[in-house]
Amino acid sequence: MDSAKFLAGQFEKYLQENLPEGKPDNLYAPIRYILNLGGKRTRPLLCILSTEAAGAQPEEAFQLAYALEVFHNFSLVHDDIMDQATMRRGQSTVHMKWNSPTAILAGDNMLVYCYSLLMDLRHPKKQEILDLFNRVAREVCEGQQMDMDFASNDNVKISEYMEMIRLKTAVLLGCCSAGGALLANSDKERTALYYQFAENLGIAFQLMDDYLDTFGDSKKTGKKQGGDIAEGKKTWLYLRAQESGLNMKQIYSEENVETRIQNATELYAKYHLDKELLKLAREYHDTSLQCLEELRNLGENTESLKILMDSLISRSH
Amino acid sequence: MDSAKFLAGQFEKYLQENLPEGKPDNLYAPIRYILNLGGKRTRPLLCILSTEAAGAQPEEAFQLAYALEVFHNFSLVHDDIMDQATMRRGQSTVHMKWNSPTAILAGDNMLVYCYSLLMDLRHPKKQEILDLFNRVAREVCEGQQMDMDFASNDNVKISEYMEMIRLKTAVLLGCCSAGGALLANSDKERTALYYQFAENLGIAFQLMDDYLDTFGDSKKTGKKQGGDIAEGKKTWLYLRAQESGLNMKQIYSEENVETRIQNATELYAKYHLDKELLKLAREYHDTSLQCLEELRNLGENTESLKILMDSLISRSH
Repeated sequence: MDSAKFLAGQFEKYLQENLPEGKPDNLYAPIRYILNLGGKRTRPLLCILSTEAAGAQPEEAFQLAYALEVFHNFSLVHDDIMDQATMRRGQSTVHMKWNSPTAILAGDNMLVYCYSLLMDLRHPKKQEILDLFNRVAREVCEGQQMDMDFASNDNVKISEYMEMIRLKTAVLLGCCSAGGALLANSDKERTALYYQFAENLGIAFQLMDDYLDTFGDSKKTGKKQGGDIAEGKKTWLYLRAQESGLNMKQIYSEENVETRIQNATELYAKYHLDKELLKLAREYHDTSLQCLEELRNLGENTESLKILMDSLISRSH
Repeated sequence: MDSAKFLAGQFEKYLQENLPEGKPDNLYAPIRYILNLGGKRTRPLLCILSTEAAGAQPEEAFQLAYALEVFHNFSLVHDDIMDQATMRRGQSTVHMKWNSPTAILAGDNMLVYCYSLLMDLRHPKKQEILDLFNRVAREVCEGQQMDMDFASNDNVKISEYMEMIRLKTAVLLGCCSAGGALLANSDKERTALYYQFAENLGIAFQLMDDYLDTFGDSKKTGKKQGGDIAEGKKTWLYLRAQESGLNMKQIYSEENVETRIQNATELYAKYHLDKELLKLAREYHDTSLQCLEELRNLGENTESLKILMDSLISRSH
């Protein structure tokens, strides 16, 4: 992954050189703050490596990759307000470090900035990229609202949960990869394969996230085991158990959090839901891999994408 | 204003036919709600009448006018959260009727929707319109942050206040008029005149708003007199009095709101700040009018814009 590492470094430099500046400082400092919190830069890398795989110079993707990273961070700033999250990547969230009004406005300005970057693209496939992005941006909002609606809905179906994670997380990954492919002038068929590769990867990733939160080794994941159960979140495990006829509402009504985590985890394991969830994640992972194989058979240089994929999925288990 | 009234009716129909639909309902219902609260539709009308004045069919401006009205309403939804406003146009604000997370997300989706409408424009001047809009959207955020910063700043200068109202209110009006002119393929010089006409109108309008809030007849304005003083807002009157060496912090520290309103109003009148503010508003109004005159001399059909302008400025005094 030397080439990808080099590109990641180059992109980080590009991002640092293009951080938004302006007045008043209370509007722009939070934007630079969240963009500087780092993270894995999965979305821009996915975009850049897709452009490279599809046969163009990876640096040509930097502007689009940056726009998509700005969009992702905009959604984090606003989601953290909605979810009342206090920490993000080990640091204070924007609304905790400043305040909610400033965080709302900084997010708004990031969305405007993202669109400015997109509109400044000079490329024959620009309109296709913009149309794809607009659809995806709308879907990300829909996914977040579905997620919030679930909190007060006792009858969420597994199919609805799958649709929610597709919209909230996976479609943006699809957009990153397909957008990168379009920059290399890929045709409809190949672009669709890049999209499917990344969307399925996103779903697999999110399901693994659910799995690791309950069954992962906290030493490896770096997160406290059972966080989702502690928060009472309606994850795949919760909904699958409920669909199997178990009275999850009662089990989650246990007030002692440690007891609740232990009870729920044991129950999920007893009904082999851990294995079922792993199997489901594996299916999406396999579909993603098949898309990548098809692309390779079409002559695309998918090696770096495969390594990125493995690093995303194989973490900590 | 028969033609303008007819166009306003046609535009309202267009807006109703294009209200966004989708799932989940909790995302789209708030968007339709705020867009249906009505209001004067000043921004879309300004856009449509500018297109007409510049020689194109006014209906050609409906899509851009709608995008700009969506943007305006997006900013209202988010500003109302930031300002903790409970009422808007005599109805509950979105975050009061639903909740803040839903209002944040509905606003986000409106901004995405606005950009989708803009990107679907098919027009030779599309890139110019988009560039203008992006600049203005950023400036509106900057104006709102300046306004929020003022609350905790005891040394706001009149010049900073003027810049704040320009950014927060006036530039969007400039964008509406200039955008409409661009749709009629206006050249740079004429487009700049439309922009200046509307930006100056916006500043005059905002200054009149400040004046009427303190000195207007509440029967005519429909608002309680002295609302800005009651809220302790740093308006032009407050800042001008402070700049004259009056200890406004002390005067606004009066806890009895009615007494505070009476004291401040009397003080402003004693120092003739009411007349000074009216004079200043008149100057911006005159500059706006001069731009319109210049456009008329260039052969533009500015009659409807003049009537719209008068209806905006002359209300209730």
